[in-house]
Amino acid sequence: MPKRPPLTPVVDTLPETVPFVGPEAQERERGRPFRARIGANELSFGPSPKVIARMAEVARDQWMYCDPDNFDLKVATAAHLGVGVENIVVGEGIDGLLGLVARMYAGPGDAVVTSLGAYPTFNFHVASVGGRLVTVPYEQDRESLEGLLDAVRREKAPLVYLSNPDNPMGSWWEADEIDRFIAALPETTMLVLDEAYGELGPASALPAVDVSRPNLIRMRTFSKAYGLAGIRCGYAFGEAQVIRDFEKIRNHYGVSRMAQVAGEAALADQAWLAEVVAKVAAGRQRIASIADENGLKPLASATNFVTIDCGGDGDFAGKVMQGMLSRDVFIRKPMAPGLDRCIRVSVGLDHELDIFAEELPGVLAAARGN
Amino acid sequence: MPKRPPLTPVVDTLPETVPFVGPEAQERERGRPFRARIGANELSFGPSPKVIARMAEVARDQWMYCDPDNFDLKVATAAHLGVGVENIVVGEGIDGLLGLVARMYAGPGDAVVTSLGAYPTFNFHVASVGGRLVTVPYEQDRESLEGLLDAVRREKAPLVYLSNPDNPMGSWWEADEIDRFIAALPETTMLVLDEAYGELGPASALPAVDVSRPNLIRMRTFSKAYGLAGIRCGYAFGEAQVIRDFEKIRNHYGVSRMAQVAGEAALADQAWLAEVVAKVAAGRQRIASIADENGLKPLASATNFVTIDCGGDGDFAGKVMQGMLSRDVFIRKPMAPGLDRCIRVSVGLDHELDIFAEELPGVLAAARGN
Repeated sequence: MPKRPPLTPVVDTLPETVPFVGPEAQERERGRPFRARIGANELSFGPSPKVIARMAEVARDQWMYCDPDNFDLKVATAAHLGVGVENIVVGEGIDGLLGLVARMYAGPGDAVVTSLGAYPTFNFHVASVGGRLVTVPYEQDRESLEGLLDAVRREKAPLVYLSNPDNPMGSWWEADEIDRFIAALPETTMLVLDEAYGELGPASALPAVDVSRPNLIRMRTFSKAYGLAGIRCGYAFGEAQVIRDFEKIRNHYGVSRMAQVAGEAALADQAWLAEVVAKVAAGRQRIASIADENGLKPLASATNFVTIDCGGDGDFAGKVMQGMLSRDVFIRKPMAPGLDRCIRVSVGLDHELDIFAEELPGVLAAARGN
Repeated sequence: MPKRPPLTPVVDTLPETVPFVGPEAQERERGRPFRARIGANELSFGPSPKVIARMAEVARDQWMYCDPDNFDLKVATAAHLGVGVENIVVGEGIDGLLGLVARMYAGPGDAVVTSLGAYPTFNFHVASVGGRLVTVPYEQDRESLEGLLDAVRREKAPLVYLSNPDNPMGSWWEADEIDRFIAALPETTMLVLDEAYGELGPASALPAVDVSRPNLIRMRTFSKAYGLAGIRCGYAFGEAQVIRDFEKIRNHYGVSRMAQVAGEAALADQAWLAEVVAKVAAGRQRIASIADENGLKPLASATNFVTIDCGGDGDFAGKVMQGMLSRDVFIRKPMAPGLDRCIRVSVGLDHELDIFAEELPGVLAAARGN
């Protein structure tokens, strides 16, 4: 057998993995398309028509490299948040930014704290730098602020992850609770506050913008409320030196020219955002009603999905999800112990929720072995 | 002073840097736009009209996440190269893939070999993992295959970088020379063969496709000949296990849905590519003539730019570049000793090369202090 170039010790031990298998991969395996795509918390209503028009308009310009400073988009984002351009960094979605944060703050063996069952892509990036993941169970379907804090202190963790509103449960903390959590953190622990769903929940869940703390990075995205998941664009905001530190390792030409233009146009159409937020709220209500009508328990949600307690164990909820998939309805479910009793359904278009409503009784009956 | 979360030791020592300052940043600083954008080796002719139409068509679809497997684009690329899907990995441009390769094969203190004055973004990524860059001077304006090989052996380097055709000199080696270089490399040294300009030079410069070697990764891009620099999409091909290893750390949702569609459409329009390659060859000829007419020495080029020996030292060529910038003509220049006597001019549109031709005599006279 020929010798091979060795991978670095950290990378060598990692599994080959995809944190999320996409619906396209499932469709290829199944050999047929889904009838309802309500599993990836995408915004089925799509981006603003103005954004779509703008993307079409700049298609021809893609021969030019993107601005590596993402300047225009940063200016627009900074104005939107009421902070300085120096407080913003743009990345290839929150995923890309999480990868950078892991590399910046966690070395081999360093403890990194998150909730058990929280965003797997963060865990993937922590593993990729050899970080040691310390997980804290959810409490009553919310990330446990006290538990996270205890773990951070116990492990002297340099990095902790919290999403608010939360995925996969849809739960949230009010801003004052988050603020207390931030204030209680050791100064030497960096908090990544993932607010991917921030625009879709109650405004009272979002702490006031404050970019003075050297141990806080907040992240938002154009993938959710702005309907641009495919374009790969998110941003982080924080204290200026923290933001400058991203310059040390980020892929400066990582965010496409198209994404920068689309993001800017999306921010500019806040009327569309308001419309969409209302539609999402109605969709959540609809999903909750369907769950109720079938004797299941929908959890309160501050996101564009509803997590539904199927009233059994993980095995049962797994059967419900599989039943939906076999009926060509793409949904997902939480997998961590305690959370795994649930399925997770994204707000889709009306006809997609119709299909979900039609199929649910049969799926439940089959899962119950009736 | 409040304490701060410490950066990892490797990241802490790095400078905050942008490997390439974009023309947009220069325009912001100058307070006015360039009249000719012929400095970033972009394809001024733009992508195929079919690609542009396709991008406009799918703008609305961007509410969906991208396929994390980049499957359709991989199928198209594999067919194009005559290899298997398992031999292809797609990334956020070659830049993104270079970042992954650095993380896969170079740890803190590991020697990584490249040419002095070769692609700075590779060096940036090597620095970001704490790698120790070992540079080999060009010889007669080509990357020195023998010098690189000597350095690899001397330093027991796990990773070496070679671009063919080369940037910033535009020079190239014929395929048989590259094949000899590959065969002579230690089995435990990974070669990154950057073929970003591969479609633009003589076919005889590209080794036959062979994905059996565990120590070779070849990279190509949609940024150059396909005119999609802004969309951020490149690919690497190689032995299946090497390609699988990217799964351990890559950002699976890094390449936008738009980029995947655009890349596929670009590959499908080989007639446009042939047209563009001919236009680029004519443009090179034009730039060479302009240089000749002004008593400068254009170097032979297998790319979409011509590097021009200004006949003086680095200081003189620097004045020529600055003169062009001050006349609103965006060009760049090599900076390494020996190469720095040159400026680098990309094939632009006819009217841009007209402006270059008009301004060159005055710029040269000013640089000479006449």
